[in-house]
Amino acid sequence: MTAPSTAGVLDVDAADLFGLTTALVAVPSESHHEAELADLVEKRLRERAPSLTIDRVAHNIVVRTQLGRDRRVLLGGHLDTVPANGGNDVPTIDGDVLRGLGSADMKSGLAVLLRIAEELHADASRATHDVTLAFYECEEVRDEFNGLGKIFEVQPDLLDGDFAVLLEPTDGWVEAGCQGVLVAKAGFDGERAHAARPWMGSNAIHTASEVLARLADHETDVVDVDGLEFRESFQVVGIEGGVQGKHNVVPDRCTITVNRRFAPKYSPEEAEAQVRELLDGADDIEILQAQMAAPPNLTDPLVDEFVRGLSLPVRPKLGWTDVARFAALGIPALNFGPGDPEIAHTQGEYVTRASIENCYDVLGRFVGVV
Amino acid sequence: MTAPSTAGVLDVDAADLFGLTTALVAVPSESHHEAELADLVEKRLRERAPSLTIDRVAHNIVVRTQLGRDRRVLLGGHLDTVPANGGNDVPTIDGDVLRGLGSADMKSGLAVLLRIAEELHADASRATHDVTLAFYECEEVRDEFNGLGKIFEVQPDLLDGDFAVLLEPTDGWVEAGCQGVLVAKAGFDGERAHAARPWMGSNAIHTASEVLARLADHETDVVDVDGLEFRESFQVVGIEGGVQGKHNVVPDRCTITVNRRFAPKYSPEEAEAQVRELLDGADDIEILQAQMAAPPNLTDPLVDEFVRGLSLPVRPKLGWTDVARFAALGIPALNFGPGDPEIAHTQGEYVTRASIENCYDVLGRFVGVV
Repeated sequence: MTAPSTAGVLDVDAADLFGLTTALVAVPSESHHEAELADLVEKRLRERAPSLTIDRVAHNIVVRTQLGRDRRVLLGGHLDTVPANGGNDVPTIDGDVLRGLGSADMKSGLAVLLRIAEELHADASRATHDVTLAFYECEEVRDEFNGLGKIFEVQPDLLDGDFAVLLEPTDGWVEAGCQGVLVAKAGFDGERAHAARPWMGSNAIHTASEVLARLADHETDVVDVDGLEFRESFQVVGIEGGVQGKHNVVPDRCTITVNRRFAPKYSPEEAEAQVRELLDGADDIEILQAQMAAPPNLTDPLVDEFVRGLSLPVRPKLGWTDVARFAALGIPALNFGPGDPEIAHTQGEYVTRASIENCYDVLGRFVGVV
Repeated sequence: MTAPSTAGVLDVDAADLFGLTTALVAVPSESHHEAELADLVEKRLRERAPSLTIDRVAHNIVVRTQLGRDRRVLLGGHLDTVPANGGNDVPTIDGDVLRGLGSADMKSGLAVLLRIAEELHADASRATHDVTLAFYECEEVRDEFNGLGKIFEVQPDLLDGDFAVLLEPTDGWVEAGCQGVLVAKAGFDGERAHAARPWMGSNAIHTASEVLARLADHETDVVDVDGLEFRESFQVVGIEGGVQGKHNVVPDRCTITVNRRFAPKYSPEEAEAQVRELLDGADDIEILQAQMAAPPNLTDPLVDEFVRGLSLPVRPKLGWTDVARFAALGIPALNFGPGDPEIAHTQGEYVTRASIENCYDVLGRFVGVV
């Protein structure tokens, strides 16, 4: 294992994608604390790609070519990371492997975007499409903070486009579409009584146990959309019942929180109806979160050009990503980026040199700079 | 409804049991805050029953005759109440009904004890037994604070005796023995994973749901002891699972807390073994509370003299009471006091004049002052 170079984000040549990723990992940017990294990215772009249009909204930076091409491709990468985990905020290098927080999710993707911006500046004539590059904040936290969402809200024209690629870690695969999310909290009421005389009351936890058993036994579907198998999931993610600190009281309240990931065959309303059916027997149901799924759109011409034109392997995206935000606006979008999605958000997060270079090669060919 | 008299604990004549109870209810004495009431009770006893031996241990007062009778009967009443509930800390009178916190549980019992002390002082020659009266603190809270327990620990000779009656509300019945209590917390482990990929982990709540269903379905027994039917109970009194504030995570921990009330046929060890069997499948089990049951002892000569000699109706005590503390020392004990046990600890707690007077009449006849 060698110590990483101390070269900063402003110094590394973009041709050294591995080195640039290392420099980006060395700048902490946990969600809500992206200012320093946003400033460095903006400064680098203004220094190294000044011919592109550069806009900033809060800690979000949008860079655009204005070449008058027929179609505009949007490439997006979030600046933030989840919190550090077991000291992984310091990058370490082991041969061609870079370990550290954000190495896969998604500072390697940011390095690829920076290089594309600089290549477009160096020679825009090669570009097959107009290109928009979005560097944004707060993807790893609640939807209300999401930087892409903020831009769509205050200056949506910055994100106009015909096709979007998000550089979420996919390990060289196209991860098409994404599943939707529905989080619901079901409440069960009872009546308090002394535990020595439970027949004077009604135990809310006992009542909930029937529904809980049904939920835990529920077998989820694998849903085919455009030939892709979306494996749904349905999990009880929380349960709470009892009178705080009282072991003598028959409890009058129990709540169960469930998280369903649903295939892009369904709307959030359909997913909700199915969840409500599973929760039948609850006294009240509150929907805590409902995020639409994104269809894979494999038959869309631009998606087809990207996927089949570049002979990329395709699989469905099971987690929710910002592709759904584009899908909601009718813009086909997919996930394609360096790094293994299975190790994102883990202490041992890493990315390989080959994975970063492969991503750049694919995207570079698509927009014409490679 | 009339406003209660403003006469204080020191002023009311003990012959007015209803008035004395009202004065006692007017002095707040939530558990851990019994000092004022203990002081008043001690002062009254020193003024009105000075020929009896009076001892004080913390906020516990023990009053004894020293008549050399063959047998000593102990009568016990706790000074504390549960917390006020909906403004019931102010006594109100409606004809022959006194409403308010502690009216049944058990300031009416304390009034009966004070009168017995004063009658014994007035003319001890009538006494059929030596008598010990114990006024004690912290019965309504965790066992470690219990005043009787404290006296047994530091000055056990104060509580020597052949038979004990606790003035818990029993509505004129003898409530014999008491059930034991076993509280256990069972833990279930899982492995965290992202809710979009639950198959990478293991859901602790789903695992717990099987055991929970078994617990909720468990049918409890009715156990015959000395011809009394002890109706056992088994309740899930708490459940907790999930990663706090995270709806995206397959939970790695779920705990279930159960409360079993077991008949005096069983020891705490036997009750624990039965509970452990019901919890089979848990990864860990912690016993939070284990309190032994008390046998009804109906065949004991003194119990028989009390129950059959005074023609009292008998039923089993389902809740745990301090009779178990005496039972553990081989002293037969039972519950007999004014007020309805079903309304103890409720906002609408009350006691009737007849209920208090009946209790005094029975206990007074037993010890010879009536």
